[in-house]
Parts: sequence; C-alpha cells; structure tokens
Amino acid sequence: MSAPDLSHEVELLVAFHDLDPMNVVWHGNYPKYLEIARCALLERFGYDYPAMRDSGYAWPVVDMRLKYVRSAEFNQRIKVRAEIVEWENRLKIEFEIRDADSGTVLTKAYTIQVAVDMATKEMQYVCPPVLWERLGVPRP
Amino acid sequence: MSAPDLSHEVELLVAFHDLDPMNVVWHGNYPKYLEIARCALLERFGYDYPAMRDSGYAWPVVDMRLKYVRSAEFNQRIKVRAEIVEWENRLKIEFEIRDADSGTVLTKAYTIQVAVDMATKEMQYVCPPVLWERLGVPRP
Amino acid sequence: MSAPDLSHEVELLVAFHDLDPMNVVWHGNYPKYLEIARCALLERFGYDYPAMRDSGYAWPVVDMRLKYVRSAEFNQRIKVRAEIVEWENRLKIEFEIRDADSGTVLTKAYTIQVAVDMATKEMQYVCPPVLWERLGVPRP
Amino acid sequence: MSAPDLSHEVELLVAFHDLDPMNVVWHGNYPKYLEIARCALLERFGYDYPAMRDSGYAWPVVDMRLKYVRSAEFNQRIKVRAEIVEWENRLKIEFEIRDADSGTVLTKAYTIQVAVDMATKEMQYVCPPVLWERLGVPRP
Repeated sequence: MSAPDLSHEVELLVAFHDLDPMNVVWHGNYPKYLEIARCALLERFGYDYPAMRDSGYAWPVVDMRLKYVRSAEFNQRIKVRAEIVEWENRLKIEFEIRDADSGTVLTKAYTIQVAVDMATKEMQYVCPPVLWERLGVPRP
Repeated sequence: MSAPDLSHEVELLVAFHDLDPMNVVWHGNYPKYLEIARCALLERFGYDYPAMRDSGYAWPVVDMRLKYVRSAEFNQRIKVRAEIVEWENRLKIEFEIRDADSGTVLTKAYTIQVAVDMATKEMQYVCPPVLWERLGVPRP
Repeated sequence: MSAPDLSHEVELLVAFHDLDPMNVVWHGNYPKYLEIARCALLERFGYDYPAMRDSGYAWPVVDMRLKYVRSAEFNQRIKVRAEIVEWENRLKIEFEIRDADSGTVLTKAYTIQVAVDMATKEMQYVCPPVLWERLGVPRP
Repeated sequence: MSAPDLSHEVELLVAFHDLDPMNVVWHGNYPKYLEIARCALLERFGYDYPAMRDSGYAWPVVDMRLKYVRSAEFNQRIKVRAEIVEWENRLKIEFEIRDADSGTVLTKAYTIQVAVDMATKEMQYVCPPVLWERLGVPRP
C-alpha cells in the first residue's frame, strides 16, 4: 500500500500591510502565510478548525521554526507548500514558500501541533485516531 | 448630581511591526490602539470583555471612523484617550491619539457598539441596564 | 463620452488568524481587506503603490469609515468591491464586502486619500494630473 | 574584565485583538512580543532600528524559533526577557516570556539576525564592529 500524498499548496499575493520599512515582508508576518496553507491542507482532509473542535480536540501549535532565505516583496506572487510529515504522537507540518514564477525558495518552516482534549484540557501524547482516519494513514 | 467622568487614557509606544514602507504607522493598525484604550476604559468600570460575556451580552463594533491628522513614527510615545459619549441605545466611544510629549493631535476616531443578547443572538435597541449600572449613569 | 468604470472586485477567504474569541472576524482586521481591494483597483489603472512612489507622491489615508452589517466567519468566501467615487481634490474609494455565494452585504466602508509631494512633504489640495491620466478621467 | 549584561526585560499586557477563537493568544502573534523586547534591548545599547540604518546595515531576521509551553490569556500581564547570546558572526537573541505575577514560563524563543550592507546588499559573515562597540563587548 502506497503512502497517501499529505501535501497541499496555496498561492498568495503579498499585501501592502505585510511590508515593513525595509520594503519587504516583516518576518513576523510569515506565520499568517503558514496558517493559510495549514488550514487549506487540513480542510483537504476534512479536518479543518471547526472539524477539530467537533472532534473534541484543540490542536495548539507548540513549536514553530522559520528560516528566512530571501525576502518577499510587494505584490509578489508566492506559493506556500505544506506537507504533513509526522502524525503519530504529534502533527508536524513542513512548509516551503517559493516565488510563484521562478520557484526560488524564500522561506522554509515547520510547525508542531499536539492534540488537547477539550473536555479534560489534557494534552495527548498519542494523536487521537480521528486524525489518522481523516488523513487516511494506517494506525501507527 | 454631577455626571461621572467616563474617560480613560493609556500610553503606548509605537512598535516596529506597525510601520509601513513609508516609515510611519500603517493606517489600518490604529484600530489596535483604539482597542487597547477601549479595553482599559471598560475595565475601569468593571465591564471588560470577560464581564460583558458573563453579563450575557456581546458588544460588536458596528461603526468605526478614523481621521488621520498626522502620522506616527517608530518608538513614538503616544497617548490614547477614550471617552464614552453615548450609552442609552448604543455605546459610542470617542478617541483622541496625541503625541505624549507635545500633546499634538495625531488621530481622532470613534467606535459605536451595540449589545447583542448572546442567547437569542438578537441586537438590543436599548442598552441593557448592566451597562448603566457599571458606568454609574442614571437610567435614561 | 461615457465615464470609465472605476471599480474592481477581489475575492478573499477569511483566515483563521483574523478571528476573535467571538469566532468572527475582529472588526479591526477589515482595513486589511480594504487594502487588498484598493491595491488591486489601483494596480488595474497602473497606479499601484510603487507607481505612486515613482510619480513623486505618497497617498496617505486621511479618513476611513467602516459600517459593520453582518459578521464574517472562518473560511467564508467574501467579495470586496472597491470603486473610486472622487478624484478631483482627494481620492475617495467606496467599498462593499459581500458574501461571495449569497451576495449578502457584510460591511460598507470608504477611505479618503490625499496626495503628498514626497520632495516637499506638502499636502496637495488638488490631485496631481498623473492620477487623472491613469484613471482616464477628464481633467476637472 | 567581567562580561557586560546583554539582557533587557519589558512588561506587556495581552490585547484582545491578539486572541483567537480558543480565547488564547494566536501563536503567530508572539513574534510581535519578541519584536517589542528586541527593540527595547537594542535601544538600551544605542543600536535601535534607526541607528542600524544610520550605521549602513540592515539586520534581517534569518531564523526564528518559538516553543510554546503555556497559552497566554486576555489582559494577562507578561514579561518578555531578551538576551543577546551571540554577536560574533550573527546576532542571536534568546527570549523568555513569563507570567508577570507568578513567573511561570509561557514561551521560549530565539531569533538570529545577520548584518546586510545596505549599499552593496551583501550579507556580512562577520558582524560589523559597530555592533561590538555599541554592546561594549571585546572584538572577537
């Protein structure tokens, strides 16, 4: 059985209000681009934010890292690719932001989320089965 | 009986991430300054956002206007004064943002909020008495 | 000679990070939606932010008003229509944000910008001719 | 000769507009808290953003990592401590965000900046001496 494709890509246009006085995107605005890609990725698997809530789990980000390779500019068309690379004990998503035309890499990043039972407020050390069902991956 | 003072003032420092490529605060970031002043004002009267929720009402902003007189710059110390000027049928707050040192006016604004019953989702055409009690104003 | 169409429309998806604890878009995030529509509108006429700068003028927003009719929710597809309604002495743009599917109006807004000569820092009480040329409107 | 203290701490109040539908600060808003602490730290050493520009160098963030330990809530008073831990080839700052009252750690983070010569646009593989002079550290 082949592994399912757990990736998704969105295309965005850099907005004026994301720029800083250096005329490039302020580094702290990139988490918004990751959020948009992550939401689109999870929606593809029927497990977006409302579905997470309905399943009884919140999935807070507990770790985030961004490496900035090249700056992004006003009105630049960028692609944000997100791919789930861990789903057993935590949900790790890797991101790559590229210029939409040239494919040049601008930013690499990852985020790690863990499941929290919304009733007990307890962090889960193993991901709940609802994640694996939605992603179509075998139970670890 | 004299009218109570329904105003409050906060002091802020303009952050780097609020600047745009013109090296001044992007106009769309000022609603954050208003929010900070409004929250401090309402907290003074024991009716901040958690207290509103506990009272059974949400208070969405339905109208906001800002007039930009002078731009604000990096690290500029500013004062945001907020004053409640209507509380009978809607909650209208007027704002004035000034340079903290010179007192020069930078921005004038107002926001209008209405009460929404969180149980019925119905907009209230008269403010709920809890507002008047907290503000210490006579029932209109 | 018929008047040119000075409007433009963009479609957006409401992002998670624009939501507040009421699970709707925080009112102070709408200026970002207006900015995106304004930039797309001005780009259509070859007078986007870099072109403004190259023409020697900055165009700060001096007045902004938003009327919130209905709230916007997570992942809601919205349309933001922007139309230039004044261009003689100041640049006034009117906005209408609607649900993309039903067409229901969510927000109405306008912004007013004035030209500032970047060399002299002087505000212009008549718009510079470059604006009229780009818009294809007769000189007032 | 003892090493100089290269740390600084700021105190902040969590704003309403930083909250997400979970009623806690959205993870992508923390870079703003780091920015405020970093700017205050660098200002202490006379090398804030305008001073950097005047020295001929931009200092873009090339790497940022945040570990989220506990969530922050509305109106929570937090302390953000920033400390310069590398200054030879790159500027690395470590951050700790704690609850102001209890001292409980909420978030740990670091950012890494490199100097870029604004005239040549070239990244510097050794920090420019102006940094060491301002920090009062010996030339490495």
